[in-house]
Order: sequence, then C-alpha cells, then structure tokens
Amino acid sequence: MNVRPNLCLAAACLLACAPARAEEGMWLFTDPPRAQLKTAHRFELTQAWLDHVMKSCVRVDDEGSGSFVSGDGLLITNHHVGLDSLQKLSTAGKNYARDGFLARTPAEEIKCVDLEVDVLQSIEDVTARVNAGVPAGLDEGAAAAARRKVTSGIEKESRDRTGLRSEVVTLYQGGAYHLYRYHRYTDLRLVFAPEQQAAFFGGDPDNFEYPRYDLDICLFRAYENGQPVHPEHFLKWSKSGAGDGELVFVAGHPGTTDRLLTMPEIEFMRDIRFPLQLDILKRWEVALTAWSARSDENARRAKDDLFGIQNTRKARDGEVAALQDPRFMGARQAAEDNFKARLAARPDCAAALAAYSRIAIAQGITSRTYPRYRYLELGSGFFSDTFAIARELLRAGDERAKPNGDRLKEYADARREELELELFSDKPIYADYEIVKLADSLTDLAARLGFGDPTVQKVLAGKSPRDRAAELILHTQVRDVSFRHRLYDGGAAAVAAAPDPMIELARSIDDEARALRKTVEAQDEVKRQAQAVIGRARFALDGTSSYPDATFTLRLSYGTVKGYEENGAPVAPITDFAGLYRRSDDHHGREPFNLPPRWIAKKAELDLSTPLNFVTTCDIIGGNSGSPTVNRAGEFVGIIFDGNIQSLSADFGYDDIQSRALSVHSAGIIEALRKVFGAESLADELVSGHR
Amino acid sequence: MNVRPNLCLAAACLLACAPARAEEGMWLFTDPPRAQLKTAHRFELTQAWLDHVMKSCVRVDDEGSGSFVSGDGLLITNHHVGLDSLQKLSTAGKNYARDGFLARTPAEEIKCVDLEVDVLQSIEDVTARVNAGVPAGLDEGAAAAARRKVTSGIEKESRDRTGLRSEVVTLYQGGAYHLYRYHRYTDLRLVFAPEQQAAFFGGDPDNFEYPRYDLDICLFRAYENGQPVHPEHFLKWSKSGAGDGELVFVAGHPGTTDRLLTMPEIEFMRDIRFPLQLDILKRWEVALTAWSARSDENARRAKDDLFGIQNTRKARDGEVAALQDPRFMGARQAAEDNFKARLAARPDCAAALAAYSRIAIAQGITSRTYPRYRYLELGSGFFSDTFAIARELLRAGDERAKPNGDRLKEYADARREELELELFSDKPIYADYEIVKLADSLTDLAARLGFGDPTVQKVLAGKSPRDRAAELILHTQVRDVSFRHRLYDGGAAAVAAAPDPMIELARSIDDEARALRKTVEAQDEVKRQAQAVIGRARFALDGTSSYPDATFTLRLSYGTVKGYEENGAPVAPITDFAGLYRRSDDHHGREPFNLPPRWIAKKAELDLSTPLNFVTTCDIIGGNSGSPTVNRAGEFVGIIFDGNIQSLSADFGYDDIQSRALSVHSAGIIEALRKVFGAESLADELVSGHR
Repeated sequence: MNVRPNLCLAAACLLACAPARAEEGMWLFTDPPRAQLKTAHRFELTQAWLDHVMKSCVRVDDEGSGSFVSGDGLLITNHHVGLDSLQKLSTAGKNYARDGFLARTPAEEIKCVDLEVDVLQSIEDVTARVNAGVPAGLDEGAAAAARRKVTSGIEKESRDRTGLRSEVVTLYQGGAYHLYRYHRYTDLRLVFAPEQQAAFFGGDPDNFEYPRYDLDICLFRAYENGQPVHPEHFLKWSKSGAGDGELVFVAGHPGTTDRLLTMPEIEFMRDIRFPLQLDILKRWEVALTAWSARSDENARRAKDDLFGIQNTRKARDGEVAALQDPRFMGARQAAEDNFKARLAARPDCAAALAAYSRIAIAQGITSRTYPRYRYLELGSGFFSDTFAIARELLRAGDERAKPNGDRLKEYADARREELELELFSDKPIYADYEIVKLADSLTDLAARLGFGDPTVQKVLAGKSPRDRAAELILHTQVRDVSFRHRLYDGGAAAVAAAPDPMIELARSIDDEARALRKTVEAQDEVKRQAQAVIGRARFALDGTSSYPDATFTLRLSYGTVKGYEENGAPVAPITDFAGLYRRSDDHHGREPFNLPPRWIAKKAELDLSTPLNFVTTCDIIGGNSGSPTVNRAGEFVGIIFDGNIQSLSADFGYDDIQSRALSVHSAGIIEALRKVFGAESLADELVSGHR
Repeated sequence: MNVRPNLCLAAACLLACAPARAEEGMWLFTDPPRAQLKTAHRFELTQAWLDHVMKSCVRVDDEGSGSFVSGDGLLITNHHVGLDSLQKLSTAGKNYARDGFLARTPAEEIKCVDLEVDVLQSIEDVTARVNAGVPAGLDEGAAAAARRKVTSGIEKESRDRTGLRSEVVTLYQGGAYHLYRYHRYTDLRLVFAPEQQAAFFGGDPDNFEYPRYDLDICLFRAYENGQPVHPEHFLKWSKSGAGDGELVFVAGHPGTTDRLLTMPEIEFMRDIRFPLQLDILKRWEVALTAWSARSDENARRAKDDLFGIQNTRKARDGEVAALQDPRFMGARQAAEDNFKARLAARPDCAAALAAYSRIAIAQGITSRTYPRYRYLELGSGFFSDTFAIARELLRAGDERAKPNGDRLKEYADARREELELELFSDKPIYADYEIVKLADSLTDLAARLGFGDPTVQKVLAGKSPRDRAAELILHTQVRDVSFRHRLYDGGAAAVAAAPDPMIELARSIDDEARALRKTVEAQDEVKRQAQAVIGRARFALDGTSSYPDATFTLRLSYGTVKGYEENGAPVAPITDFAGLYRRSDDHHGREPFNLPPRWIAKKAELDLSTPLNFVTTCDIIGGNSGSPTVNRAGEFVGIIFDGNIQSLSADFGYDDIQSRALSVHSAGIIEALRKVFGAESLADELVSGHR
C-alpha cells in the first residue's frame, strides 16, 4: 500500500502545485517559503537569520512555545503556558498564579518544580535511512514495527554521539523523516508573572475575541550548574515593536493540524459531529448555569466544568462557522479536486486515488454510527464523574486480565499510572451536582436515541431520568475511594460481586458501547492508512514546496500586522492601554473585566497610547502559545497568546480574510513592567539584552 | 360525525369510570367533587359554601384570577397579574411596578387605566337549547355556524334580560354548553403593591422552584359610581392561615388544559416538538448570554429576549421531565386503553374509536413535517425582529388583497389592529444584536436541515451564515418605520417594487413555508374534529363525573398542604421570613436575591417565623394566578402565584407525587403589610373584613 516517494517524484515540477493562500503555512526551517517572501515582501531569508531564530526558540514542556530574550538566559512564554509551574510554586500564603510574581534580585528567582524546555540545535533528513529499514511488501503492521525499530536506532545513535535529545519526526504523513536534536534545560526559575486577571483580562467573554487587552506573559530564567545560562542565540528586543502593515514571523511549535482531511471527513465535522457536540455542550451549559444561579455553593461546584464547557463550545462554534463558509470550503474542495485530477493523470498514483474512496466509505460508516457512539461510548448520555469512575472500575476489571496488547488503549500498562491517578483521585464529588448533570444527560439520551429505544429503556429501568439519576447517584458506592481500591485490586470478580447500581448500569450498556467503539476505531484505522497513502503521494508530487501538517516541532509562519472587517465594521490591528481601561470602565470594573489594584493605582503613570495587543495574518494553532513574533531583523516584537474566533478553522485550513493570530506587543510589555510593576531592571535587561 | 350525547348516555352508570387521581380536577361549580371530598376528607360541600366562594371570586382581564377580601370592595390578585396596570400607572418619576405603592387614604387610591374584573353570578345549563339549534346531519362547518348562531342568540337574550355579561361556554369538547353570567367592574383603583423584587424574589433562578419566598400580591379596590362597592360576598381572612396537612381549595380561572390529548399527540411533544424546541432555546440562550457578557449595552439589548427564552426553556424542561416519567405516562396510557376498551364494547361508539385512528395518522404527518415547519414557517431559522417584519410586510401585501375569510388568520380584519400595532411599533431594533441572532439561527438552520439542502443553499446565497446575516441586516430597510408604512399602504405591488434583501429572502422561502403550514394546519383540523368526537363520547359515557378541560372559567380544585420529596430529600411545605433573609444572605444580597431597602431596614421588627409561602396538591394551571386558596370555612388562607417545576405536566394530566401549587400565605401578607410597609389600616381591613 506504500506509495514510495520516488514513484511520482519526477512529476513534481511538471504539474502546477495547488497554490497556497498568501501567507499560509507552518513551514519547516529546512524548507522555508523563501520564494514567497521574496516575491510578496522582497525579503531575503538567509540561513543565518533562520539559525538565529531557531536557536533562540524554546519548546516548553508538552504544551507551548517560548524564546530566549536575553543573553543571561531570560526566556519568555505565556502566562497560561507557565500557569502549571506558577500553581506548583504557590502555597497557601502565596498565590503566584493569581497574584503574580517578581524576582527583584537573582536570589529571589524561584526554581520551578518540573518545568523543562528544549532548544532545537540541528535538523537532519533521515528519510532514506528510515525507508531503507522498511522492506517493500510488508503489511501495514509489520511496516510500522520495522519503522519504529529503525527510528529508535537512529535516535539512540544520535543521542549517544551528540548527547542531545534526539527525535525522528514523521512529516508529510510519512513522506519524509527528519531527525531533530534538542538541548534540554531542566533548571528553570520563575522571574516574573503578572496577575492572572491581567494575563486573562476579559475572561471567557473575550476569549478568542478581538480587540483584546491581555498581558499574557511569564518570564523564566534558564540555569545550568546553578548559574544562569548565556545562550549563544537570543532575540533582541525591538526598539519600536511591530506597526500596522509590517511583515512579521512567528517561530514556534504548532501542535497538530488536519489540513489534509478529505471533504467527506470535513463535512462529517460540519454536519454531524460538531452540531451534535454543540447541542450537547449548550444543553450542559444552560443546565449548569441555571443550577449555578441558585446558590454560590452550586456555582463553586460547577465552576470548572462550566469553564471547560464554555471554552470548548466557543471553539466548536468558531469551527462550525468556518466550515459553513463557502469561501473556505470552496477553496478546500477546489484544492482536493485539483489534487485528485493530478493523481488521476498518473497511473502510478492510482493507489492514492483509491484511498479517497476508502475514506469516503469508512466516513459514511462512522457518520451513521456517531450519535449512538457519542452518547453510549463517549459518555454524553451519562455526564457525571460517578459514571466515568464506575465504567473505569468495570473495564479495569475486564481489561487488566487480558494481555497488554489486547486491551483498550487506556488500560495498557504504559498508561497505568495515569489511570490510577484518575481513578483514586480524592477530588470531591458532590451528589447533588452529580444528580443534576446525570438527570439532564439521561433526559437528553432518551430524547436523542428515542424513548422507546431498548437501550434507553434498559438505562432508565422504568423510572424517569430524574428519579433514575437520583437513585443511581445516591446508592452507588463509587464516590468512596476505598471502595474503588477494593474493586480495582480485586479485579473482575470483585467488581461482579459488588452490587453497585452505577457499575451495573455501565455493565448493561458495555457490550453495545464497545461494539460502537470497535466500529468507529476500525474506520479510523482505515482512514489513517488511506490518509498516509494520500499524504505520501502528495509529498511525492509536491515535495517540500508545500508544508507538512503540524507535529509540535519548530515551524516558521509569516504574515503582516493587519486589521480586518467584522459585521461590516473595521477592526483595528493594534490595541493600547487606553482601550484596556475603557473596556474595564464599560463593565464598571466587574468580573471578568476587573483590574488588579496596582493597575488601577498606576493608571496615571502609564502612557495610555502604548500598544498592548496586535493581530497578524500568521498561520498558527495550539502549541504556538508563547511563540515569539519577530520582525525582518529577527527581533522580538511580540508574543503569540491566542487566535481570534475566525482562526478556529486553522485545524482544517488557512484563511487570511478574518482569521488572525493575537500577540502581546513588545512595547506594551516594557510599559507594564516599568510603570505597573516597577520592574525597571527586568525591563532594562529585556531592552539591552543583558542584565 | 357528531356523537350525540344521548347515544351512549345509558352506559354511563354501567361501566366503571376511569378513576381520577386523588385530589385531581378543575371541577365545575355546578358539578363539584362532593363524593370525593366526603370520602377522603369528611367534608360536606354545601351549596351555600359554593355560592359564597363563587361570588367572592373575580376574573381579571384576560389573564388571571383574584378575590374580594373585604366588604368595602378590596380585592387581591398577584403582582404579576396587576403588573400591566402598575406599568400603565407609572410615570418617569414614579415607577410603581418596580418600587411598589401604598394608598394611605381612600383619596390616594389611583384609578387604573383599563383594568376590568368579572364576578360570576349564575350558571345555567343550555346544552339542550344549543343542541336543538344544530340539526343532525350537518357537516362540521355548517354545524359550527349553526352553533355560533344559537349561542349568540342565548347570550344576547340573557344580556338583554339581566344586564349581565353573558357567555355560553363549551365544555367537554361540546358535550355540554353552560351559560355563565358575570357582573363586570370597570373602575378599579390601585391600593397596594410591594416592590417587584419582593414579589418576584429569586427571579429566574427561583422561578418554578420551591422553596420560595415571594410576596406576589397586589390589592385593588372596586368602585362603582365613584364609590367603593360593598360586595355581597367576600372571603373572610383566616385567623391562622393554612397549616401542614390541612384540606384547602383553590377557586379560580384555569386557562386551558389538554388532558384529553391522545398518546401519539403526547409522544410527539415528548419525542419531537419539545426536544427540538429545547435545542433551539438552549442554543439561543447560550448565544445571547455570551453576547450579553461582552458589554452592559449588549446585556441591556438582549435582556427581554433572554428572560422570555429562559422562562420558556424552564417550562419546557419541566414538561419533558413529566412526559419522560413512566409513572405519569403509564397512567395516561392506562386511562386511554381503559377508555378505548369501553368504547370498543359499544357499537354505538365506533365513531369515537375511529377518531383515535384518524388522530394517529394526522399526528404522524405532523411529526414528519414538524422540524422543517418549525425552522421555515415558525421562523426558528431566522431569529430576528427584522425577518419577522419583512415577512409580515410580504404577507400583508399578498393576504390583504384576498377576501377576509381566505386569509392567513393573522391578516384577518379582526386582527388588523394587532397586526398594525406590531408592524408599526417604533421599538428600537439594533443591527448588531439582530446580526448575532440571525447568524446563530442561520447556522442552526444549515446544520439542522443539512448544508446541501436546496432551501438552505437558497437562504445562504453562497455566503456563510455570519456574512449572510450581516449582509441582510445591514442592507434591509425594514427597520425604518416609514418604509414599513409605505410598503404596507402600497400593498403587494409596492412590496414587489422594493428591492429589499430581507423581504426577498422571506419571499424566496414563502411557498415552501406556506405549504408546510398548510400541511400542519390541515392535520390540526383533523385532530380537533376527532378530539371533539372523542370528548363528546367521553361525556356521554361519564357525564359530569369527570371534569372538563379548562376553559378560563371558574373552577374549584381541592388538595392538602403537603411537602414532597426531591432527590431523596424532603421539601417542607411552608416557608417563612427567616428563610427569605437566609436565601438573600446566601447570595450575599446579589441580584436577583437582593432585598428592597425597607425589607432590610425592617428585618428586626418582623416575626421571622411567620409563614410566607406554602404548597398544596391542588390542581392548577396558567390563569389560576391570583386565585384565592381557601379553607373548609371558606376563608382566605393564601393566594396562588406559581407551580413548582414538577407541576408543568398539568397541561397534560395531574400528578400529586411531586407536583405542587404555590401560594403566598395569608399570615405572611399581614406580617409584611404591618411590619415592612407600615400599612396598618390596610392590614386591619383585611383581618376585620371592613375599613
């Protein structure tokens, strides 16, 4: 099934490539968009520029990006990327996550608990070595095993030779394999964080929106051997920052994209998965909001769930909006048609064309299965911690008795620690809140699958959803952690011997839920293999003239500082401190538009016309959080912290009409550090590049 | 198709009647549940008791109930029933609706603008006269016309003879006709209202909930010839009010019920109509709540819509909960099965049995049509004032050219004033808010009907829902009232000549929308006729041993003061002032749990153990608002102001497990009048029955 790259390679220059949209792309540092930059922006991208930016960038833990911004090891990322470290450093008396932090002297810098950052040192194309290690004619499973073996060997050899952390990255769905070598820093110390309210000003209402006014930054210093490091490369602070219309770059670690999804797969998201998920999320949001309004204690109990629901709901709404935009979908369709026509013209690419048909068939099966799968296996019909735990106990008993390789993936030995951490968490679970959630989702289950559906009848056991929820929640023992330990340790026999109504409910639907999952996962595997065939054919035809899907490795995006139009009105590209105070005033300083006390106290000292946030057309996605925005000179002009709602289509494709990446402006950072926080020496270090 | 009552009448005593649930029923004063009261409560209902209560009760305008509570013409209803009058009496300087009102002297009592109340004086059975005026063998239309003619004649004759307002009421779906004669009072003067915040304490979060703490009352005095009236009958104020377990009665004007709906009709509500409506309402609620959070001005613009949406959403959720309760539905099914078995045993009732089949077929057609009908004809796909106006202009042009009898009903001459009032209202319509609503509902339309649906494609016109909404809202002229006048006056030709994009959108879907409506309305007519056949057969079999569906005429319900169980915990039947203050404190006095200033100031003077609200098992529904709750002695012990969420099934059937009617307690009213409002003389009048 392998489309070997060399089969189609000769065609690459004969056929016109599907043109990328202006300023589209999360480009490899090894194959940057030199021609586009030269043509559109008269900018010569040099190898020195690339090396400098690459070695100034950092990858933060498993979730974000950042960059060195001083020769004394200072690095900057987002407050929301550093938040986990801020929380771990906080104590009962000192809430750094909420109240911020400033080390006024090196001695005051606090060592983080487990923060690590990687700096990319080199990239090597190992495609030929990897492919040589995978003999032709192997089936998919054997090929994957052979590939894992050869990449592990390459990684080990590299690590042994260089002492650097080495990873073979699969690009272009297997069209290319690159070896990335990183220097890892493990001693990071907290230098500065603003108040969470300044970092996330506007909260959920302003999340994914623009204009914005967030100081979403956090500064750490890298140490080695107890001393600050002096990195060879760091980004110099721009004197003026970015201005309207200016060419800028984003260098960071976009997580994942699905830009090669086929039309049936995207239409499934647009027409089935997202609308259903949104119905469910909005239903839960209303239920939890209404319940929260009835008492402060209710509100406290529902707060985390509600925040997560609102955040996802907003993202999904944005994605649906993008997928319902004929301009966006038309471009996707045209690109697919064009590519399929190119494949059709090449007899040696028949396998890729056939892969499209396999995807369409598999997607059809998944689409028909999806609603039931969502309610029964993904648990949308049983929204409660209690049900989730009951099912975990049930399945742990069944799965752990099987050989490791035969288990559902969440019960594999490799994930045992994660499972047990979750299963034995003593996080409080409130019966009243559980009843509200479960009753609402059982009601929805009955309406969605049909009241007369045999599974629904079995689940409700002759009771109303509300009565059934109350009965299950009040009589189950799974909220008792010691009960969970007993059943987990005792295995399937202990589970079977415990007459727990919630576990019995989970058991009563388990055969059907597992069967639904099996169907969906089988189609996922068909699609994954078919996508790989198509991806490799694409790479064979186009090579590196297109960029690969994001892989949480370093990429370069470019674009311009540029406003846009929304509902017929212009949205200016740059906000300032005056706007921040105005927005707070417009809401009478009420949450989440309240300002921390020192921001109110220091207002008069600020130059309110200083830029605070700005938008660019750069192509970003989750994982880019904390990425530096740099100018032609390779200087730091800002830091990525969000995308606007229109940018939520970025998973599926790029659009530059309204989609924008949001950055904190370099000038705003300096103004706040000096005037609000009195962090003069820190600001001096950023501006001068040295302490 | 008429089942003439006499056909089956002989069977009435031979077959056991389907037993009504304990304390079920909105009974006619002419056929009260004497036997049940005697058996279950050892209470002898006398004619004198009935006459006294009947003549003490009032019907308020078209919306509520009330009662005389002093010999000097004082009458009491709910604040929310009196609200319209309070608003009409308010001025820029005096907001009586919000701040309350107290007339300390007769001279301070303010005459209401257009409030009217009716007091029932007599009831006469005119069934024989009506039936005699409708010759057998007429088709449905001719029979209806003949019936209208004879009832008009009866009403006119009665009015001429007695001078009383006379109405022939159709009971038992036409099984009986009663002539009701009313004395009408047209000079009502405002005496007292509490602050709206005291009347509706807890706002939307506590609406339909219990425990409650609302002083939802309003007092007026009836005048005639410039003097207070001295009604022959008024309710004496109970010394102690109602206590736990006590038998009480509610006498008032329940609006409408649908207790004879067949199972396919109820299942349609449970499985199709309500779930779809809830998906839409929750979607709108989330969209409007999120938009409101972005600015105070947004919140102000969305407030009324949001309140209406939340109120309906809560009611629908309650109804679905009832309909998903197998206990409730099982009882309904058993009753229907039982009745059908009785019909089957009687060859002369074959028409009624056949009517069930006709309903099932008609309901099937409606169920399949409903989603499209809801989105296209009921306008759920076009949530905006702008679309509604555009469609009204379009249809007014088309419909007004037709003979009156051929028009869609909202364009009939009789409703012209209402139509024009709405069409030419200068209520502000905000473009930004309209775009938010329309974009969201177009998004939903596309997801629900399918993005590829030809109508969806036509509606979106090649644009995204958001872009299309912005284009339509920004370019339509229908927000300009003078434009509306021009098109309305100019008729269809003027409408066709105006190239307005919103009107053209309405036109583009009008054929399909009208066709859907025609389908649904044709099935409604089939069902209505079939229901009448069944209803008359039921009356023929059971006579007045069952009660007829509510008709906004005086009815008597009975029940006990009784708590209930919810989520495994008991809910006590009576609340007190201490609970009110505690609930406000629990919310730190934040809206909608804030207390008006004088309530805070006077707290220390109150006996906090005084009962404030209480629940009973009495069978009520909308229209009962303001109904007196009376004790065995016929004394006033409280006033109905709401039902709990479980009572929302009352439209379809009665349930006494959790369903409860909520009253303000008579003792709480006196305590608040004396201690909070310093209305000593008013309290004295209530307690003594005279000024």
